[in-house]
Amino acid sequence: MPEKRRRPGRRPGAADTRGEILTAARRVFAEKGFDKATIRGIAREASVDPALVHHYFDTKDGIFVEAMQLPMDPAVALPTILAGPREEIGERLVRFVLTLTSDPQAREPVVALLRTAMANDQAVAMIREFLTQAVLGRVAEALGIPPIRLEVAFAQMFGVIMMRYILKLEPIASADLEELVEILAPTIQRYLEG
Amino acid sequence: MPEKRRRPGRRPGAADTRGEILTAARRVFAEKGFDKATIRGIAREASVDPALVHHYFDTKDGIFVEAMQLPMDPAVALPTILAGPREEIGERLVRFVLTLTSDPQAREPVVALLRTAMANDQAVAMIREFLTQAVLGRVAEALGIPPIRLEVAFAQMFGVIMMRYILKLEPIASADLEELVEILAPTIQRYLEG
Repeated sequence: MPEKRRRPGRRPGAADTRGEILTAARRVFAEKGFDKATIRGIAREASVDPALVHHYFDTKDGIFVEAMQLPMDPAVALPTILAGPREEIGERLVRFVLTLTSDPQAREPVVALLRTAMANDQAVAMIREFLTQAVLGRVAEALGIPPIRLEVAFAQMFGVIMMRYILKLEPIASADLEELVEILAPTIQRYLEG
Repeated sequence: MPEKRRRPGRRPGAADTRGEILTAARRVFAEKGFDKATIRGIAREASVDPALVHHYFDTKDGIFVEAMQLPMDPAVALPTILAGPREEIGERLVRFVLTLTSDPQAREPVVALLRTAMANDQAVAMIREFLTQAVLGRVAEALGIPPIRLEVAFAQMFGVIMMRYILKLEPIASADLEELVEILAPTIQRYLEG
């Protein structure tokens, strides 16, 4: 069956090669962290040519996102959220985070990653580096605000997701998305206005 | 040596009895959760008379706080924070949480409890019930605000503590307490104004 999905000319075993690169990437990220991991190092770990890694994945961010099964690549999602009127960025961001995490398939890999991080200092370092490089640094620079304000905004959304989906506190666990947007958007807006 | 610390008339072995009650309480809370645990059930698990449990601990809250080595009993700390001008409650609460968690000895048992909770659904239920009964319900009632607003405020402080002490994101991990109070107090104030 999988034969049918192959593009013509793709060499046999290619589907597995991609999976092997991702497995190797998970090992490299866990051992080296995000900052010190390189496409070259991941290629070496997977015993393939670095050009093949580049063929499958554009960037190190992209490999991380797929290796951890994250629901979106910040490099792709952030520009859309950051575009649009600055005075509504709080609402756009809150709505984006709540909508994304309301889908269990999108949420579960993120929750799994957080659980690992809580129990494991190496995983903490990897997540900290990815967050700083791929998410927080990028947004703080795009908006021209002090990074601490963005971290506090991130902490608010992180806390809400934890209460809603892990601790399952009521009423926040069953609250309507729009009710949460109304409460949270002014907070995030104030932080991001700098 | 421990003999010297005993009050006159205290029966031999009392120091161990207290420890045995706490060990039994940890088992009962883990198995039954906070809501369904009773002083009678803890006494039975420890093979002591319920009156002895009451002799050592005033309330179920008090047993939980000591069993989990929490740095303070909400029943004791909350009235002080809730007293005082309502228009400064945001600042008082932020300052209290940040000051308390800045002491590693106070912080570590809380972090340990959170780590357990992340990995274990039974621990999640126990913490959810304690938080709801002993902290959030009490504050929401005292302030007369909708519980969801208090949960969002709690989520903000929880997220900040996670970023500061577990994820160790910079600059929030090294930020001055007063800088954080300035950023966070207006948020908490807005939530708690209802």
